[in-house]
Amino acid sequence: MSQAADAQTTLERLAALRGAMARHDVAGLILPSSDPHLSEYLPAHWQARQHFSGFTGSMGTLVVTADFAGVWADSRYWEQAERELAGSGIALMKIGSGGAVAHFDWLAERLPQGATVAVDGQCLALGQAQQLRDRLAPRGITLRTELDIAGEAWAARPSLPAAPIFEQPQPYADRPRAVRLALVREAMAARSARWHVVSSLDDVAWILGLRGSDVPYNPVFLGHLLIGLADAQLFVDATKLPAELKAALATDGVRIAPYFGFAAALAGLPAEAVLLDPARVTLGTREALSAGAPTVETINPSTLLKSRKTDVEAAFVREAMERDGAAMCAFYAWFEAALGHERITELTIDERLSAERARQPGFVSLSFPTIAGFNANGALPHYRATEAAHAEIAGDGLLLIDSGGQYLGGTTDITRVWAIGQLGDAQRRDCTLVLKGMIALSRARFPRGTLSPMLDAIARAPIWAECLDYDHGTGHGVGYLMNVHEGPQSISKAVPNANMAMEPGMITSNEPGLYRPGQWGVRIENLLLNVPVEANAFGDFLGFETLTLCPIDLRCIDTRLLDAAERAWLDAYHAEVLRRLRPHVSGAARDWLEARTASLGGA
Amino acid sequence: MSQAADAQTTLERLAALRGAMARHDVAGLILPSSDPHLSEYLPAHWQARQHFSGFTGSMGTLVVTADFAGVWADSRYWEQAERELAGSGIALMKIGSGGAVAHFDWLAERLPQGATVAVDGQCLALGQAQQLRDRLAPRGITLRTELDIAGEAWAARPSLPAAPIFEQPQPYADRPRAVRLALVREAMAARSARWHVVSSLDDVAWILGLRGSDVPYNPVFLGHLLIGLADAQLFVDATKLPAELKAALATDGVRIAPYFGFAAALAGLPAEAVLLDPARVTLGTREALSAGAPTVETINPSTLLKSRKTDVEAAFVREAMERDGAAMCAFYAWFEAALGHERITELTIDERLSAERARQPGFVSLSFPTIAGFNANGALPHYRATEAAHAEIAGDGLLLIDSGGQYLGGTTDITRVWAIGQLGDAQRRDCTLVLKGMIALSRARFPRGTLSPMLDAIARAPIWAECLDYDHGTGHGVGYLMNVHEGPQSISKAVPNANMAMEPGMITSNEPGLYRPGQWGVRIENLLLNVPVEANAFGDFLGFETLTLCPIDLRCIDTRLLDAAERAWLDAYHAEVLRRLRPHVSGAARDWLEARTASLGGA
Repeated sequence: MSQAADAQTTLERLAALRGAMARHDVAGLILPSSDPHLSEYLPAHWQARQHFSGFTGSMGTLVVTADFAGVWADSRYWEQAERELAGSGIALMKIGSGGAVAHFDWLAERLPQGATVAVDGQCLALGQAQQLRDRLAPRGITLRTELDIAGEAWAARPSLPAAPIFEQPQPYADRPRAVRLALVREAMAARSARWHVVSSLDDVAWILGLRGSDVPYNPVFLGHLLIGLADAQLFVDATKLPAELKAALATDGVRIAPYFGFAAALAGLPAEAVLLDPARVTLGTREALSAGAPTVETINPSTLLKSRKTDVEAAFVREAMERDGAAMCAFYAWFEAALGHERITELTIDERLSAERARQPGFVSLSFPTIAGFNANGALPHYRATEAAHAEIAGDGLLLIDSGGQYLGGTTDITRVWAIGQLGDAQRRDCTLVLKGMIALSRARFPRGTLSPMLDAIARAPIWAECLDYDHGTGHGVGYLMNVHEGPQSISKAVPNANMAMEPGMITSNEPGLYRPGQWGVRIENLLLNVPVEANAFGDFLGFETLTLCPIDLRCIDTRLLDAAERAWLDAYHAEVLRRLRPHVSGAARDWLEARTASLGGA
Repeated sequence: MSQAADAQTTLERLAALRGAMARHDVAGLILPSSDPHLSEYLPAHWQARQHFSGFTGSMGTLVVTADFAGVWADSRYWEQAERELAGSGIALMKIGSGGAVAHFDWLAERLPQGATVAVDGQCLALGQAQQLRDRLAPRGITLRTELDIAGEAWAARPSLPAAPIFEQPQPYADRPRAVRLALVREAMAARSARWHVVSSLDDVAWILGLRGSDVPYNPVFLGHLLIGLADAQLFVDATKLPAELKAALATDGVRIAPYFGFAAALAGLPAEAVLLDPARVTLGTREALSAGAPTVETINPSTLLKSRKTDVEAAFVREAMERDGAAMCAFYAWFEAALGHERITELTIDERLSAERARQPGFVSLSFPTIAGFNANGALPHYRATEAAHAEIAGDGLLLIDSGGQYLGGTTDITRVWAIGQLGDAQRRDCTLVLKGMIALSRARFPRGTLSPMLDAIARAPIWAECLDYDHGTGHGVGYLMNVHEGPQSISKAVPNANMAMEPGMITSNEPGLYRPGQWGVRIENLLLNVPVEANAFGDFLGFETLTLCPIDLRCIDTRLLDAAERAWLDAYHAEVLRRLRPHVSGAARDWLEARTASLGGA
């Protein structure tokens, strides 16, 4: 399709939107990247923003008025958005640039008093809805949330995904469904709640011990869950459930109801206290409840429960890490041998690395789209190579690869930088500073209950010491055959709250970085498990067990900048990587592993 | 006075309180440690809690019902409270112990529905009042805040202090009053506020460039300030102001009004926006404003302004630190020579050290009560030796001294631990860990705007590494001839907010510690100045200039546990201490300084 044809189509789509807006007397429309489950990855059915704007980035908000259309996107999408929006008449509104105005402030300033703005309350987090109202109300602008303007204007809207749902297989599922439901009900009772609504797909899947593949990367399925103290209802497309699974759910007191029957069921609840998480249910869900129903607004109990992996789960994660590390070895052994002999691009890397993971026992899918960025591309933390734009790995420089897999027994996420040809001192210095930050956090101990954001400065200190920094968090929670990004903990500049207390069994990424725009990027990432170290009068102390197993390329490191403790950590890590991965690799991969885990003494 | 006589008096006082409660049909009374200025040190006029309970600790809350009286106090006061409350029938309610219930929850649980609780709104922070209401209202308990029950029942209540007020002297006062008022008005205008009420004494004193001595340690005076965009009113006992100061204030548009005329003046304001800080004005102040007056609730602009010392002020602080360091040298030289030859107790230390400070040019007063704690007494972070209970410095152990002074050009706060006789390895290890934490924070760099609590883990990391911790913050803001504890920044586990952004010119303490109850305590404290280091594409980076000048006792340190960077820091610090203090000391003090600043190379 030519650009002109694209632009024509987008113009027609915008005209249809404006027609629907006019029918409802709506002056401004907001189309965010969101669905009724507030997910990271959206089924096509809810990709309205992409459909009507032509911008395919994973985050962005389309705003339409009678004489304006604009996409608000942050810096990682500017280049892509400029390309995709060219000729459409849709403006790119750069979030985070100097003088940038948030889309709601833009609407508040441009629309006349008395105007109406619409946003679909079915796809808007309850917590955000109040903020939006607070911005628009002082300007005399009414917010309507009950209209699905995009749905009205959307010809040939894709249907909902229909991938089958399956039980989390044994022996990987540590606790029976009945136990999980009992734990959630215990938390409900402690908050005096009689009901609990769950719309976030990872929470639904965890509570029920089920998995699916309705969206890429996250092994979840579309469904809402309504939990009472005695029974529960799963709102789901029943055709996705095998008969024996239906029976098993019935045994555990979980009834099946139509996916779109969720709102009606909420409306029919007695006026008893409902526990809900304002960050993880939509305004539509709150409004479906009778206005008089008392609510207990708190974090989903399952978010806390699933963040603490059991000992059984942790043991399977260690196994998955060995498989994942073996795949990395096989890939890197091929890569280093092939480099200079065959043409390798960022896309080839994704293909070969994904193929190595797919060969591993227990592999389910990738856990997120592979980021393989050579030199300047590595400086874009969320870079993704495309057919249209990607680099060949040739000459000198740094290759950053951030990748991960879903396994039946865990979820992985690993970043390494690799030396290509000759490196300069500046590149080695950057890699070494990032490694120092990564090691400092890996070695940290802290009292149980420490709020995770308080640990962020430990990883940054060695980088700050050289007046450098990175503009992303240091770590995110990671699921168990589940979303690679999960809460409640986050090692970052987030404002701490009590839900972010570090507890045994949590898995968190450790991924400081350094980015030189137009030159190169560095990020080194391992996953860490919270493990008890010692309990004494000063507290119950936790430390980190490094789960990720893969050599760190010492050719990128200026070992003279490491102190004795850092050198000892690196040697111990490489010894452990060798010990754990050697049984899982052979031939060239084994040779490569042995070469790349040599101790610093011999380096 | 005997214990029995004390108890009798307390019983009589409680009876008077209960009589006043009954007259107003009040079932529960809360008497916090607080005054209309929400100060750290209270004039006797507002020490109602102490008067009615007999408990003289600086923090604690008395709760009285018809058949119960109890003082809620935290662990640092338990021993003292038990002694002082003995025989009075008043219970000690231990805050922070297992199963402890907050006083408002205790009241909510014990009082019947429909009961009334009273607390004096004139001495209750606006922000706290709402929390209190939120706890009591769900139990059907009414909160009355307009009654001064204690005042009614208080026979021979002390009058208000009447110390003279003086201009902050030249050349130490860097900015004229008119400039300070203009800066505050600029901040008011930016928030669209027409008026601003200031009750916190340090803010009042800073804005007007005045000082006083109505309470110990903090060089402030009782007054409220009402700032309009064109003029201002100071509510103060006019007899405390010399005539020429009145004239100077008039020239700057500051009118004098009676101290108790504040509420009436607020009531008479037009219905225009009033800027107020809910943490630093009382409920009484808010209620004195007409109910319809719109308020802008935000931090006092002066709190942010005064936290950033100017270059001129920083230069005077460096001078004050040299004077303070010289006093420390003179004291320690005497102490080490006298030890073993004359009887020295914790009280002697306070006397001699205070006398050395008092000899220094520019000395005004102590900045807080000296803490001198030997061995087990040092394990109590807020210990204060008394005539009744204090230790003699004899035998072996650790002596912790935390002290500071007010100087015309700055405020000091320093803690050192000193070796007495022979130390064991365990003591030296504790001191070394604390020093490592102190050095790590001293060496830190970070982007301007970093929220101060995020730096807390940098000081704790070396202590956490050994599964140890300390139960207080790492650092507090420090004033300039002003309160030794001031905001907005705090290096601690406080929940960060935007007002805590680190900015050039801020002065913060750096005081990690380690406490072995019943054995010894360690704390090492220097004050740090935020100074610019480098501005680049990654941020404007700040670092710390160590302001405090006094040797660290190397006999307490196991230098084998220090790494090369820590040893280099220590040598550089001692070289600077020697260079800066040598001109200010002579004789034995100079000999002592030279001996105690020897480099580690020779240690």
